[in-house]
Amino acid sequence: MKTLSGGTVTSPKGFLAGATRAGLKTGDVLDLGILYSEVSCVAAGLFTTSRIKAAPVLWCQKHIAAGKSQAIIANAGCANACIGEQGLADAEEVAAIAARKLGLLPQQVLVASTGVIGTALPMGLVRNGIEKVTPSREGGHDLARAITTTDTFLKETGVQVMLEHGESEIAIGGIAKGAGMIHPDLATLLCFLTTDAAVEPDFLKKALRKAADVSFHMITIDGDTSPNDSVIILANGVAGNKIIESGGRGAQGFEKALEEVCLFLAKSIARDGEGATKLIEVIVDGALTAAQARNGARTVVGSPLVKAAVHGSDPNWGRIIAALGRSGVEMTEFKIDLYLDSLCLMKAGCALPFDHEQAKSILDRAEVPIRICLNLGDGTATAWGCDLSEEYVTINSEYTT
Amino acid sequence: MKTLSGGTVTSPKGFLAGATRAGLKTGDVLDLGILYSEVSCVAAGLFTTSRIKAAPVLWCQKHIAAGKSQAIIANAGCANACIGEQGLADAEEVAAIAARKLGLLPQQVLVASTGVIGTALPMGLVRNGIEKVTPSREGGHDLARAITTTDTFLKETGVQVMLEHGESEIAIGGIAKGAGMIHPDLATLLCFLTTDAAVEPDFLKKALRKAADVSFHMITIDGDTSPNDSVIILANGVAGNKIIESGGRGAQGFEKALEEVCLFLAKSIARDGEGATKLIEVIVDGALTAAQARNGARTVVGSPLVKAAVHGSDPNWGRIIAALGRSGVEMTEFKIDLYLDSLCLMKAGCALPFDHEQAKSILDRAEVPIRICLNLGDGTATAWGCDLSEEYVTINSEYTT
Repeated sequence: MKTLSGGTVTSPKGFLAGATRAGLKTGDVLDLGILYSEVSCVAAGLFTTSRIKAAPVLWCQKHIAAGKSQAIIANAGCANACIGEQGLADAEEVAAIAARKLGLLPQQVLVASTGVIGTALPMGLVRNGIEKVTPSREGGHDLARAITTTDTFLKETGVQVMLEHGESEIAIGGIAKGAGMIHPDLATLLCFLTTDAAVEPDFLKKALRKAADVSFHMITIDGDTSPNDSVIILANGVAGNKIIESGGRGAQGFEKALEEVCLFLAKSIARDGEGATKLIEVIVDGALTAAQARNGARTVVGSPLVKAAVHGSDPNWGRIIAALGRSGVEMTEFKIDLYLDSLCLMKAGCALPFDHEQAKSILDRAEVPIRICLNLGDGTATAWGCDLSEEYVTINSEYTT
Repeated sequence: MKTLSGGTVTSPKGFLAGATRAGLKTGDVLDLGILYSEVSCVAAGLFTTSRIKAAPVLWCQKHIAAGKSQAIIANAGCANACIGEQGLADAEEVAAIAARKLGLLPQQVLVASTGVIGTALPMGLVRNGIEKVTPSREGGHDLARAITTTDTFLKETGVQVMLEHGESEIAIGGIAKGAGMIHPDLATLLCFLTTDAAVEPDFLKKALRKAADVSFHMITIDGDTSPNDSVIILANGVAGNKIIESGGRGAQGFEKALEEVCLFLAKSIARDGEGATKLIEVIVDGALTAAQARNGARTVVGSPLVKAAVHGSDPNWGRIIAALGRSGVEMTEFKIDLYLDSLCLMKAGCALPFDHEQAKSILDRAEVPIRICLNLGDGTATAWGCDLSEEYVTINSEYTT
């Protein structure tokens, strides 16, 4: 597997993308874009688990099942959520306008929105914007830019893989936006993945779920989940490989590459949490089950007190244990070990004397590794998050004002 | 029912309290205190649901069952948690020293600690401190002061009630500490309640659980739960009333008064959350069940994004709906109404145009009332929390350094 320099959603063959400034956001920024495949795709998606779903999510859930998607139209600046029937009608019209432009049927166009909840899409701006988008083979970066909100850097990547049988080379690309309202599951807001591999639809669905389970489902920024969360993958088969099926040739290579792409994007989202200055990695091992390890790791990495302590490089590790204790994970206090990188802070449930300067220097790093060994079983999991800074509060106390 | 001016844990007859500066905290502050009843008490307690329990909690859970408690010794500055066998031995020794001083058996003395996790109690300071405490009828305020950590004001209250049969007047007093690591259940850190009523042990247990369900279990500051959470009530019977039993005479009056005391303390804790400038009240009604209403209200009031928006008086109400949506509570989007005080922001799932200045002026209040009507059933609940400020982060990024 090779990471492509400048990799993005248009790195796989047959994908074009473009973006424009439609005027949905203030300032001279891209805020509307299109991802387009030259041929129709096998598609799979994961969507918000919130009971309140934005109109574009409802549109996608209805039409992605048909498996014939060929484009995604996305905007920032407006979530198109909580505005009733109008929202559904607008999402449908957005798909229809883009479809007309691309020579497709509306149901072949998926829709994704991010931004403020409770305001209607300014359809005039959207209509004009769509006309101005010119998808190209180089346009992935512009699309990545157009879906950002409070992100401070673009999240995009691409990899190339020689499938096991050595006959075909395929590529996988991805872009994502994050920053706030990020929590499992489904912690991402928007993520678009593309591949030129030919894949069987059920295999694609399972591979996406599997990759998300160790990536998007394992990051948290603030415990809040968005009504717009969408992870969509389009596979257009242009690479010409033999169709990859579950357990068949090429399956493992594809799954590994997709996981790599998702992990990169998920960790980028965690690293770029609103106001974040550090990436926190929490490994829980020795849990009774993997599910318990996942729960423990996500709870610790999501604790506001842990996040604030890491922000100030304060080795107040009792907060890690307090968060673990309230996670509901099975544990025996007198078996728990706690490490900051390789520095042991607690052994068999008992505080160890430790070098505070060494602990502070680990907490000062851009990536802070925390490891908890429950010493009960084989369950292991890793979760990522970020520190909690004053800046997070500042950003979020003035978001719409 | 009459709220007592200057009411506290020593307002009910037969209770004495006192505190001293033992030196567990830096600065010239009280940090160790004793609550003592002249006669033995019926006692009940609620303790942390964390799997990691501080040594004092384990001591209390073991001995409160016996129902013969007569004193509580409490300290701030050190949680006596996560230090293994040493912690258990220290908690037992603290009880024993206090018992000797008070002429009791160790198992008659309950122990409570709050402060940094993972450091051992400095037993020399504790021993000397206990000797210096002189419990008195006026000492409740000092004890309230001695258990504070980052609290900015004392939480104490007392009420007097004429029981239904008009024969006996009883009093209930309470003190609490809060500020951080506060979440249901059991959101309090430390709370000591006293009453001079004569009560049947099972009735007391049930009344405490009932009162906590609508108070301490309905507040959240930061989603974190402490290994030290303890709510303890001592009833010494000095008022000489006929013993109150479940469903019997006086039961309702006692329950109502206890609920009042707990509500006052719980709301005080929420109002004084670390860095807080406002109290947020979230009412969810029309839920399918009360349990669902509780879950919804607690999720919304605990959302960092809601809390930050309230802090900045930003009427970004989509965050309230996003938090509600991820709570897991049963809802039908097109039935939900949302109010800020009496200002309707969303009706039947659809955003309404609203006066932003009016919304901002409600958000500027010291108490911000949010109401969500699910319009599905009869379940209703109220939860309290506070805004999220830059100050919360500052406090918690430098807690031990």
